[in-house]
Amino acid sequence: MTPDGPSAVTDRPATLDRLSLNTATCRPYTLAQCVAAAQAAGLGAIGPWRDRVQEVGAATAARIIGDAGLRVSTLCRGGFITARDDETASKALADNRLAIDEAATLGTSELVMVVGGLPAAYELMSMPHTPADGTDKNLVAARQRVADRIAELVPYASDKGVRLALEPMHPLFTADRGVLTTLKQSLDIAADHPADAVGVVIDTYHVWWDPDLQASIARAGREGRISSYQICDWTLPLAANTLNSRGFPGDGFIDFPTITRWVAEAGYTGDIEVEIFNEAIWALSAAETVRTMAERYSGLVLPYL
Amino acid sequence: MTPDGPSAVTDRPATLDRLSLNTATCRPYTLAQCVAAAQAAGLGAIGPWRDRVQEVGAATAARIIGDAGLRVSTLCRGGFITARDDETASKALADNRLAIDEAATLGTSELVMVVGGLPAAYELMSMPHTPADGTDKNLVAARQRVADRIAELVPYASDKGVRLALEPMHPLFTADRGVLTTLKQSLDIAADHPADAVGVVIDTYHVWWDPDLQASIARAGREGRISSYQICDWTLPLAANTLNSRGFPGDGFIDFPTITRWVAEAGYTGDIEVEIFNEAIWALSAAETVRTMAERYSGLVLPYL
Repeated sequence: MTPDGPSAVTDRPATLDRLSLNTATCRPYTLAQCVAAAQAAGLGAIGPWRDRVQEVGAATAARIIGDAGLRVSTLCRGGFITARDDETASKALADNRLAIDEAATLGTSELVMVVGGLPAAYELMSMPHTPADGTDKNLVAARQRVADRIAELVPYASDKGVRLALEPMHPLFTADRGVLTTLKQSLDIAADHPADAVGVVIDTYHVWWDPDLQASIARAGREGRISSYQICDWTLPLAANTLNSRGFPGDGFIDFPTITRWVAEAGYTGDIEVEIFNEAIWALSAAETVRTMAERYSGLVLPYL
Repeated sequence: MTPDGPSAVTDRPATLDRLSLNTATCRPYTLAQCVAAAQAAGLGAIGPWRDRVQEVGAATAARIIGDAGLRVSTLCRGGFITARDDETASKALADNRLAIDEAATLGTSELVMVVGGLPAAYELMSMPHTPADGTDKNLVAARQRVADRIAELVPYASDKGVRLALEPMHPLFTADRGVLTTLKQSLDIAADHPADAVGVVIDTYHVWWDPDLQASIARAGREGRISSYQICDWTLPLAANTLNSRGFPGDGFIDFPTITRWVAEAGYTGDIEVEIFNEAIWALSAAETVRTMAERYSGLVLPYL
């Protein structure tokens, strides 16, 4: 058992205080197991996915996390709001309002939004769709629907004190997961709303290749919209399931010192989440995963903050 | 045997006159076989890779293509100019000068440039490198070397009447093949040189996801820098070898009518190349491949030109 309350926070080594374990990195483990591993290693926060929250209920999840003295850095994830037909879109919006409620209960201001892909990819994603959608490859229109539906969700989210954190995705996923591909594009959509209503996620895996990255990170900072900084490496060759092809920082090709410096220069002082989809990492114990991510964070990220 | 000279050109169906077969689409076949298939189907041009040219020599290649009444739309490819050490860089520049010579002999003004990835990926690409390069993940510096070496090659290329056609690559390939990822970035590098010295390639596979695509295509047209329009589809799931994961237009998620309209509005009147890396397509006869690409071109591209 671990001590409750402020003393747990005070005892934490300051070096890892900003480090957060995203539960996707420890996919086989329950929320309680993830929390225990993060706390034992001295991390300051956890970023739960909704499946792990829903297994116990949001109120219990909040208690498990709070009892361990951890912050909730983000809730992952809302989104998938690109449907063309009204019925599917309504269901998606209702689910996003539920995610907003969960974020509020957990006490995090940041709900990560993976906005969804093209209607033509619904079948691939096993999502409900009308037959006509199977041929809809209109990327411009899908992006406009994202902007429209973010606008629909903003009043509800703001009422609950939750910010919609738009996550640009690597163009590897434009067709089937996220039609937002750059920070600039996400910031342009966010610009229609207050800075505490719509933010952006900087996930190294998704944005490292962007020639405008430094400028877009600086803009995100200037506009007060950095919801989260997530670290995860681009490894090659890609895994057979390209979704699960990510690595610990240092195992791939991303220049973490440089990107971290840009994020720090942009004034970001929040948590730094490690979110990795990788079957080999899921085979590790939670303690080993957290130990490795803490080592990599200490070497490649912390010195540049 | 086919008739030489202008009559062969005159007899060609006008609808396929702008269509060009890139020899990578028919990888198992010789240049002569590719030329014969393109000519038989009524295509107006061919885009050879250097391996197929070098098998017979550039002068003979030029004769084979000219005898069939075909244009050479581009030569693929120069590039791989991101090396950090002087010796590897010198070798790369020498090879690029040879590619410029070959393009001139073939009578094409457009040499496609795939600029290369990070030094840290040399081993993966089986390219010569110094041990220190294995840890070089500095993307900003690699991009600067591309700009510098393009500047070194421009005088030689311009003397020969050859334009260096920068090809932005899908961010799937940033680490190991092409640190240029967007048309905007490529146009920014090109901007230091005359429009007939450095151009850009618009390959749908590489750029379809770009939120700034319409604006960048318009700019490329305004600046007179569209070297080639290449069509190839983004299919899912990716093939195990992600390099060979491309499809015939219509088999994937790309909105060809929209992008083609943007290219036409930008004033492009040149050839339209089909360049597909796909093992299933390489198993087809050249005639069948060319027939399918002509059908897809006629349905998804030609009406929007």
